Amino acid sequence: MSDFKPIDPNYAARVRSSFEKQNVMKTIGAVLTGVAPGEVVIELSYDASLTQQHGYLHAGIATTVVDSACGYAAYTLMAPDSEVLTIEYKVNFMAPARGERFKGIGKVLRSGKTITVCSGDVVAVEDGKEKVVATMLATMISVAK
Amino acid sequence: MSDFKPIDPNYAARVRSSFEKQNVMKTIGAVLTGVAPGEVVIELSYDASLTQQHGYLHAGIATTVVDSACGYAAYTLMAPDSEVLTIEYKVNFMAPARGERFKGIGKVLRSGKTITVCSGDVVAVEDGKEKVVATMLATMISVAK
Amino acid sequence: MSDFKPIDPNYAARVRSSFEKQNVMKTIGAVLTGVAPGEVVIELSYDASLTQQHGYLHAGIATTVVDSACGYAAYTLMAPDSEVLTIEYKVNFMAPARGERFKGIGKVLRSGKTITVCSGDVVAVEDGKEKVVATMLATMISVAK
Amino acid sequence: MSDFKPIDPNYAARVRSSFEKQNVMKTIGAVLTGVAPGEVVIELSYDASLTQQHGYLHAGIATTVVDSACGYAAYTLMAPDSEVLTIEYKVNFMAPARGERFKGIGKVLRSGKTITVCSGDVVAVEDGKEKVVATMLATMISVAK
Repeated sequence: MSDFKPIDPNYAARVRSSFEKQNVMKTIGAVLTGVAPGEVVIELSYDASLTQQHGYLHAGIATTVVDSACGYAAYTLMAPDSEVLTIEYKVNFMAPARGERFKGIGKVLRSGKTITVCSGDVVAVEDGKEKVVATMLATMISVAK
Repeated sequence: MSDFKPIDPNYAARVRSSFEKQNVMKTIGAVLTGVAPGEVVIELSYDASLTQQHGYLHAGIATTVVDSACGYAAYTLMAPDSEVLTIEYKVNFMAPARGERFKGIGKVLRSGKTITVCSGDVVAVEDGKEKVVATMLATMISVAK
Repeated sequence: MSDFKPIDPNYAARVRSSFEKQNVMKTIGAVLTGVAPGEVVIELSYDASLTQQHGYLHAGIATTVVDSACGYAAYTLMAPDSEVLTIEYKVNFMAPARGERFKGIGKVLRSGKTITVCSGDVVAVEDGKEKVVATMLATMISVAK
Repeated sequence: MSDFKPIDPNYAARVRSSFEKQNVMKTIGAVLTGVAPGEVVIELSYDASLTQQHGYLHAGIATTVVDSACGYAAYTLMAPDSEVLTIEYKVNFMAPARGERFKGIGKVLRSGKTITVCSGDVVAVEDGKEKVVATMLATMISVAK
């Protein structure tokens, strides 16, 4: 990922500031743990209040975390006066989201002037072992603030 | 949707019982308001704790609601001893999710023995007017309990 | 679909002219049979040269037809000096693409200045009966010529 | 990819035999150039008969190639008496498909008893340089023959 050169040297502060405004992140207990050019990591602890009918993390909550990770990964490479919006995403759920902790990892695949394509993974951490439980392919757009 | 014939006459009770076990629905304040053969509606009130950086409903929370609506729409047509799982979904976000209330509407497009394809809409209700703000295309699978 | 108002009164001629330049349409025998504001239909006859291993139309050829139908549906609503490009699409294959003839029907769901969201169906015609065998959800972009 | 263990030692012959029956591959000039456990490569030369309106490879033809690559990647890991079908795919087009030659590379991300999730790339080769021009995320299903 190191070959991405951010236009805005303050990209990390910009991402952190926007993340702070996402109230839902506080609500679900998600924390921004990594910001690099073209790559963002958001982590979430398991909580029984976020589960589906079998006691695993609900697919939509896993999506919430990895959507923000992908959106902010795109945002690291955008101009200072831009906003990032999700146009669309697709997620495949490959295993039950079972674990003590989850990482949403968003990476830029292709960064354009208007459109950014990202891939994301949801990694479940259980007994110290990591497993990709879902994978996202997403399209983000840069809009003027 | 009235041309779908459920195998299980108790499909609605089965859906309601499973929905009750989705803790995340209580956490975000989502309510199951419609269950018919091949169609389910889940409603959510706007809450500032569920927003993204511009104060609108986070895409992932909109997805959470419409994913469950699609999953349960599929589940209405499945066998009594089955479980429903989301294999994958794609969502397009067509307008900001701005409103006092949101409806996740899931409908079965094609019901098969193993695989069910659903389409879903997220409808925002603002000042009494309804607007589709996101649309989902999803693949569900029936697995033995 | 009649509530879409094209910016360009010559939208149909513009679509037809672009379609004529898509060599692949001639190669597979696809014909543009309907152009209306926000909706385009492209038809294809079954041909044994376009099949997958079971003798049905290959998923990718069905996609080719409905992608162009969706792209041109979006294009009917774009400015005269624009081009349309496919950003991405998702297709669900709901039944084998078996039939004498296939229709790719593209419709605009939401038309924006830059981004257009379309849904598309592939309809197989067999013994005079029509069946939706695949469904597409696609994102198109308008770019300056 | 080397950690995938095919159930069927004759997986490669099975893939080649099925590929031979995909008439559309002959029609567009696609050639199967790589078969390994969980990974398949199909190559295509540029031909003016396969283009969209700007003279580049049509998105649907690029999809045809990478869909088969993903489907056969999944098929390498399936049981001898199974068939592979595409349930759905999503493709992002990241750059114009411009080049003398194209490779559709399909890889298994997660192989299950019924469902296989694959990722695919379309790589354009131009003046000896390779570029990923499209990326696929696909769901395949194994069905009894």
